[in-house]
This record gives sequence, C-alpha cells and structure tokens, in this order.
Amino acid sequence: MIHTYHVPITFGDCDPAGIVFYPNSFRWIDASFHDYLRQFGGHGAICAKLGGTGLGLVDSGAQFRYPMRDGDMLMIGITALDWGRKTLTVSYEAHIGDKLAFTGKEVRCLFIPTKDGLIAGDMEQVRAIVEG
Amino acid sequence: MIHTYHVPITFGDCDPAGIVFYPNSFRWIDASFHDYLRQFGGHGAICAKLGGTGLGLVDSGAQFRYPMRDGDMLMIGITALDWGRKTLTVSYEAHIGDKLAFTGKEVRCLFIPTKDGLIAGDMEQVRAIVEG
Amino acid sequence: MIHTYHVPITFGDCDPAGIVFYPNSFRWIDASFHDYLRQFGGHGAICAKLGGTGLGLVDSGAQFRYPMRDGDMLMIGITALDWGRKTLTVSYEAHIGDKLAFTGKEVRCLFIPTKDGLIAGDMEQVRAIVEG
Amino acid sequence: MIHTYHVPITFGDCDPAGIVFYPNSFRWIDASFHDYLRQFGGHGAICAKLGGTGLGLVDSGAQFRYPMRDGDMLMIGITALDWGRKTLTVSYEAHIGDKLAFTGKEVRCLFIPTKDGLIAGDMEQVRAIVEG
Repeated sequence: MIHTYHVPITFGDCDPAGIVFYPNSFRWIDASFHDYLRQFGGHGAICAKLGGTGLGLVDSGAQFRYPMRDGDMLMIGITALDWGRKTLTVSYEAHIGDKLAFTGKEVRCLFIPTKDGLIAGDMEQVRAIVEG
Repeated sequence: MIHTYHVPITFGDCDPAGIVFYPNSFRWIDASFHDYLRQFGGHGAICAKLGGTGLGLVDSGAQFRYPMRDGDMLMIGITALDWGRKTLTVSYEAHIGDKLAFTGKEVRCLFIPTKDGLIAGDMEQVRAIVEG
Repeated sequence: MIHTYHVPITFGDCDPAGIVFYPNSFRWIDASFHDYLRQFGGHGAICAKLGGTGLGLVDSGAQFRYPMRDGDMLMIGITALDWGRKTLTVSYEAHIGDKLAFTGKEVRCLFIPTKDGLIAGDMEQVRAIVEG
Repeated sequence: MIHTYHVPITFGDCDPAGIVFYPNSFRWIDASFHDYLRQFGGHGAICAKLGGTGLGLVDSGAQFRYPMRDGDMLMIGITALDWGRKTLTVSYEAHIGDKLAFTGKEVRCLFIPTKDGLIAGDMEQVRAIVEG
C-alpha cells in the first residue's frame, strides 16, 4: 500500500436509502490523493513549482462492492501509481474492516494555463518530485 | 437524447483551481437520473412499489473533456439506457454550449433488503415501469 | 423580492431521515447570491475589479421551518440587502410552493489580501457596482 | 470541552478563493454532533428507541473568524449543550492550532412522525440517554 487515509463516515454522507451517496466516494479518493501529496509539500506547492493550475482529472471511475453507512470507518489505500508521459493513474481500494467497500481509479494530468486554455504538461516533473 | 437536465454551475461547485471539483459531476449525473425517473412517479415511489431500498450504484465513471466554471450552464443528457438482467447502465453526455464537458456512465441495481443484506433484484420490473 | 433562484431538490441532497441535509441550504443561499451577482458581471469580475479575493462570509444562519424532500422545487428569494461600512447582510426566504421552508442570512465582507493576511475592504465599492 | 472531533481539510473543501467553502463548516459541526452521539449508541439507535426520524435542525448559525485552507487540521469542540423542553442547543468552537476558525450553534429537535407531518418530541428522553 503506497498510502492510507481514514474517513469516518457520518450521517450527512448518506442518502435516504441509508447508505453513502456515491459521489462522496470520489470526494474521498481525491482527499486521499491530496493527503498523499502533503509529504512532498502538498498540491499547492507542487503546482506553484511547476507552473500548473492543478493535478486535475481526465478520467475517473469506481466500483461499489459493499454498502457504507453512518459510523463506519473507511480506510482508503492507494494501491498503485502508473506514470504515463502526460498522465498519472492512481488506483485505490477502500475497506471497512476486512470488507472491500469500493475500488477506484483516477487519471490525472498536470494542467498548465496557456493563452489557448489549459493543456496537459509533462508528468515527468511531477514524478521527479514524488519519487525524489 | 432520452432526457436532459440543466445545472447552473456556481462558485461553490469549484475548487481552488477555479474549475468544478470533479465529484460534483457524479452528483449531477445522479440528479439527472432521478429527474428522469420523476415522470414514472420518482425513485421513492418506484422503490416502494418494488420493495427495494434504492436503484443504487455498482459501477460509475466519467471522462472530463473541458473545464467547467462558475456561471456555466451545464446541459446533461441521458444518451442510452442499457438493460441487463440485474443491471441498468445509464450513459451521459454533458455539454456547455456546444462544448462536450464530460461523458459519464452509471451501472445501477435495484437493491432489495434481505436478512443477509442487500441483494440485486430483477431489473425487468424497473424496465416495465420505465418502458410502460 | 430583490432576486429569485430555483433549486430542484434531488435524492442526493437528502439524508437518511429522508429530508434535506441542512448544510445544503447554505450551499443554495450562496448559489442564489452568486446568481444575483451575474447581472453585475459576476463574483469573479467584481472581485478582480476591486482587488479582492472574494465576497466571503463572517456570519451566517438559517431557521428551518418545513422539511424539504427529493422532488421539491425550492424557490429562494433575496428579501433584503443591508449595506454596512465593511459588511453586506443578505436576507433570504426559501419556499416550496406556498410553504416557507427556511429563512437565512449571510453577512459578507470584501476580503482584500495584504501581507498580514485577509482584511475586510470598504463595502461602498461593491454597493456602487450593484446599485449602479 | 464536552467533545472534540478532528477534520483534515482538503483541496475539495475549498473554493476558487482558496479558502473553505463555508457550507462545509455546517457539514463538519453536524459530523461532530453525530460523532458525540456514538458513545450513546449513535443517532440511528437513539432515534429508533424514541420513535423519531431524526434529531434535526430548527436553527443554525456560524461566525467565521479565520480562513481555513487545504492541509489545515481543524479541531471542533462541543462547548455547551443547553437542554430546552423541546430543543437541544449545541455550541461549537473550531480551532486550527491556537487560532479560532469559527464558532457555531445548532438548535435541534427530536422529530416524530405523525399523520399530520413531523412534530417536535419531548427532549427530556434524549437528555436521559445522553446524561445516563
């Protein structure tokens, strides 16, 4: 496991079916990624250093395996980082105790502002920061 | 287009990079689906009729193509409904003007409560309601 | 009524009690205020013009009168704008049909960045833009 | 301090001004209250025991004193519980390190379903559970 992050699930994260409203799962994997970046200075400092506006998303997905409820402690793990030339794919597994709650994936780019809008920068610079 | 739903994007939907925080995209496709169901009585009435707790998610994903910002009017379209025996796959395309902002997909089941937890019910019953 | 804004309430806005999770009410009055500002160029343009980082909050409150549910159409009205030297107090009333759902209030400042952090700027400049 | 609860603030909690989008503060004080209830069985068990649908809000407010940002660790304390006949007023103070970030207040009722809608039940029963 590359990184772990804990989320105490609360009443307000759940919907009228009494289980987590699924978009929150994406909120939490994003938070896990940002938490992972803190040891390297954090998202803001990394972007400032590289002239980017953000390590933003181009693709994202999740598979839900087990219902999450108020009071559950969710443990989100980053299981893999796959570096492409202009993308970083982050893989996640989230458990409640020994139950797999969901798996997820994010494909991120380093967005660089240009006069024609945002473009995807070279991911090698981010990798150099993360892998030291 | 099977259904369209409009979302006026606001400041609070956006993150420090000034663009939409991506989990909101899932919040909005979910809202589009629920809006689509209203003509058939709505999610609550359909679930009550079929003894389900919800038309919940087992898989979901989105591909982000164009940055969405405060003040944009997002038009979300349901482009396809694919009926499986125990799943319904809903496909989405979201535009800002003539720009494709993102595409998305949800795979939903009809969750039925049993003494052993939630199980996926027969999707044929939902299809009968939707296709009349 | 100074301004009105409509919010179609959806499943994901509601909690396990089946009614709106109350922090969403603040999300919606904030969206109403930003919608009001669009006729004057929008929050971003106003702040850019005045050198502020945002028309942010120093105080906020709401009184909940009637439960809001999935499928309800909420109509939020700005009922008063009270201009102080460094604050703007915005008053809201939100209805579902003829039922008063909640009342709310926001006290906003124009936050100006300085070397010692954010300070509250002169609200007269914002008033001049809004009152033309 | 009656109870403390920690929230690690993340990128997605913040808005284009780079500070916390204020409705999240209400999300967090609500989570603090639910976390406090866990030692008494949790909100769901308490409501089930008393025949209520929820310990919901009739009034709520917050005063924002210091900007909260990505990476801050917020410590929310419940500073007072004031029991009325049909209401419980919960007072909060939230700090980042030694800085007061915001104060807040929630007035809650025990909502009981009746054939004429939700009514506020006797808060004495909740007090008996909490004060043992």
